[in-house]
Amino acid sequence: MERQYFQDYMEGNVCFGCGKDNPDGLQIKSYWDEDEAICIWSSQEKYHGWPKILNGGILATLIDCHCMGTAMAAAYRAENRGLDSYPFYRYATGTMNIRYLKPTSNLAPIELRTQIVEIKGRKVVMTCQAFSEGVQTATSDVIAIRVADESQAHGNNPFLQG
Amino acid sequence: MERQYFQDYMEGNVCFGCGKDNPDGLQIKSYWDEDEAICIWSSQEKYHGWPKILNGGILATLIDCHCMGTAMAAAYRAENRGLDSYPFYRYATGTMNIRYLKPTSNLAPIELRTQIVEIKGRKVVMTCQAFSEGVQTATSDVIAIRVADESQAHGNNPFLQG
Repeated sequence: MERQYFQDYMEGNVCFGCGKDNPDGLQIKSYWDEDEAICIWSSQEKYHGWPKILNGGILATLIDCHCMGTAMAAAYRAENRGLDSYPFYRYATGTMNIRYLKPTSNLAPIELRTQIVEIKGRKVVMTCQAFSEGVQTATSDVIAIRVADESQAHGNNPFLQG
Repeated sequence: MERQYFQDYMEGNVCFGCGKDNPDGLQIKSYWDEDEAICIWSSQEKYHGWPKILNGGILATLIDCHCMGTAMAAAYRAENRGLDSYPFYRYATGTMNIRYLKPTSNLAPIELRTQIVEIKGRKVVMTCQAFSEGVQTATSDVIAIRVADESQAHGNNPFLQG
């Protein structure tokens, strides 16, 4: 089966981190590997914190957006329906707790792996680990809250109003 | 007395969030207001998460970098010396816990206010609140760890090697 990227199903998404419709953004892509959601992303020089080291805030952005996409995908999966089905859900970050363990290279691809801890109503609880060149460099706990639940793509979703 | 911005004293800082030497970065500026460190920053459209709303990862980047600069300034202040004195210190983020309370406008200036909770050896513990149009939109706890301590600006600091 062809790999499905969560963000490809977010119509009109202009988000700096995950929006396919933001040409100046990070344009992350997330997908399922069994029960884990994976994001592999390659940086640019401008996103360093120190030379050759990824900025910690950009790493936070990757974790944040990867987990919001994962929350959506996990909710759909829990309802036994595809990423192209309705109602469509969108999530926003409630809390994000990050522990930085080691510097993350800005020169090598960064890999994020997210596991679902719990889905409870509008809330999705996740853990996410970051890896650089095979070594874990950060760990985080993220809680997502569903803020959009629309039966049609262009319903009255305030987040799709320009 | 003229206002001193912490980041103006970070020679060769190319960081995406706080580097005066990163033309493609956010270029935040932080300063003391009595015992609080303040950062006021205006966004650009590309940094939105939803239309007119700041991306949560960029807000994390602002908090992170503002707190790392504040950790440096607080350590200097605790040692009763100026921002242009030696040894110079640089900090990296140990943990950053953010709670997002409300959407932050991407159209109005964002204000961050950081308080020092504790300075203990190489560690600085802080709390930081974000405000948008006078309303608090996020709160965070941040721990910074000193990772550079150099007697000269161009000593053997690995973070200044290109």
